[in-house]
Amino acid sequence: MKTSGLVEPSVAAEEIARVEATILRVVASRSALIPEVHQHLVQAGGKRLRPTLTILCARAVGGCDERTILFAAMVELTHLASLMHDDIVDHSATRRGKASVNARWSNGVAVLVADWLISTISHELIGHGEYAALGILTGAVRRMCEAELIHLEQRARTWELPEAVYLEIVRDKTGALMAAACELGALAAGATAEQTNALRAFGTAMGMAFQIQDDLLDLTGDPALLGKPVGTDIAMGQLTLPVLYALENSTDGLLDQLRAAVTVTSPDELDIPRLRALVNEAGGIDYSRRAAQTYVDEAVEELACLPEGPAAEALRGLAERAIRREA
Amino acid sequence: MKTSGLVEPSVAAEEIARVEATILRVVASRSALIPEVHQHLVQAGGKRLRPTLTILCARAVGGCDERTILFAAMVELTHLASLMHDDIVDHSATRRGKASVNARWSNGVAVLVADWLISTISHELIGHGEYAALGILTGAVRRMCEAELIHLEQRARTWELPEAVYLEIVRDKTGALMAAACELGALAAGATAEQTNALRAFGTAMGMAFQIQDDLLDLTGDPALLGKPVGTDIAMGQLTLPVLYALENSTDGLLDQLRAAVTVTSPDELDIPRLRALVNEAGGIDYSRRAAQTYVDEAVEELACLPEGPAAEALRGLAERAIRREA
Repeated sequence: MKTSGLVEPSVAAEEIARVEATILRVVASRSALIPEVHQHLVQAGGKRLRPTLTILCARAVGGCDERTILFAAMVELTHLASLMHDDIVDHSATRRGKASVNARWSNGVAVLVADWLISTISHELIGHGEYAALGILTGAVRRMCEAELIHLEQRARTWELPEAVYLEIVRDKTGALMAAACELGALAAGATAEQTNALRAFGTAMGMAFQIQDDLLDLTGDPALLGKPVGTDIAMGQLTLPVLYALENSTDGLLDQLRAAVTVTSPDELDIPRLRALVNEAGGIDYSRRAAQTYVDEAVEELACLPEGPAAEALRGLAERAIRREA
Repeated sequence: MKTSGLVEPSVAAEEIARVEATILRVVASRSALIPEVHQHLVQAGGKRLRPTLTILCARAVGGCDERTILFAAMVELTHLASLMHDDIVDHSATRRGKASVNARWSNGVAVLVADWLISTISHELIGHGEYAALGILTGAVRRMCEAELIHLEQRARTWELPEAVYLEIVRDKTGALMAAACELGALAAGATAEQTNALRAFGTAMGMAFQIQDDLLDLTGDPALLGKPVGTDIAMGQLTLPVLYALENSTDGLLDQLRAAVTVTSPDELDIPRLRALVNEAGGIDYSRRAAQTYVDEAVEELACLPEGPAAEALRGLAERAIRREA
């Protein structure tokens, strides 16, 4: 299993082990494919970032109990299901250095296993009478799907995407589930309304920073560390913040070259070193780094209303590393 | 809009119009694709069988109110979402004589719109505090996905599928959602436990009969009436009851010919008239017709504990027409 450098393994190792045990219990099924697919995903590693957020948020305002573990497991399963469906949407053949589920099995298996997971999450939370938690997760999934559809529509249309629209998409696409992860921690620990709002806002801002870092890595990352090729977003016709900024803020010769560099009909045609140089020249990389830092600062500020302690400290560390990671 | 000959339009026309209005309210979204895809599905027609079951079951034990309409709308949306995902699994290009969502847009759009619908159903039912209804629907989806995965595993393996396993798959794949549709009608109308069990069992048996008729139509149907090619199940390597029976109950020459007829590498290679003749010779068509009739009888018997009246009569009629329909 790779470490991503984002979540320090020691930060919540014991709780994460309990989350894994809960997940293993939940993915038992008459269909042999379900645990098999899950095993494949586990072997590919993963940051376990979202359950870590749930656990740390619960600890920051009270403590981590059985409900926290259940919620953390359900957040992680929601994330795994969304990855399987995203890989269909993006025709991705690899994920974390291993074959994606659609590539290893088929689109059909990726569709059905993820659908089963989503219905199993509901089943589990309803079985425990955790309706508020289910509402939080369902709301996040709904916003994620809607944002992804808006992003897809945008792909089909043009290389022009206003930055404000882009940021709204990212807020829902990546921010919503991280916000839900944090809110579920707050719910489990019986946080006050003020703490809950702060933790939700922390999750959203952290998600924004995280996604912008993903955008940067798609242009500047190392495929070996990422476990997938770079340039995949651009090759799919999907604007990322560095490219979007560069296209919006350059003129004449540079703009023509940028447009030519992003307009490809297949991923193989994409000249990443050249695109990176052009985006850099237009200031897109610097701008995106500053934007990501702004969201990290915002996230950290939200923590001010929490009691000082190791959990709040760990959350701060997570936010700061979200934009320093290389995978 | 085509009529299928299954649901008489007059049986619950006013309530179905309210169901449609509820669905239209629910599919409003910031993403233009969501109502667009829904409009495409509506234009393709559809039997509205499942919401009709919910309405008739509620009427049979009490009456149809706002909750019934809400539940009926959520059942229909669950069905639409499952169709979109099924068409990805089966690589289907047409559905009810129109392009499938995956063919008209993409697998990505079909994945995301259906995911959005599923999360929106939860959102809607949680918003109304209808946790029991959500549990019923979620349980049905879970069983459907699991059964489809087991069916997929079977595809990959062999042409041998014990009839008992096949019937269990059908019970979950088609029976579960019809049972849920009926149970939701019972829940909305405050049925007794005995009535609820009877209506659930009615839905399951009706679903079995319905699916066996689908199996028969895949072999003996008219593509023009069906709105899709025949033989698609077989071409995908999926055993249906007539073929399964024929393979299990023939020997020597006939068995060799049957095996040769079903073993194709593409749908174009399938010689449907020849396969039909061979399955018929082996008794598979007669056997399946009798099996479907047995489930209809079982469904009708379940209605015995209900008060006599037009709703119970209409349910009986639906079950009987489930195996007489040609589309």
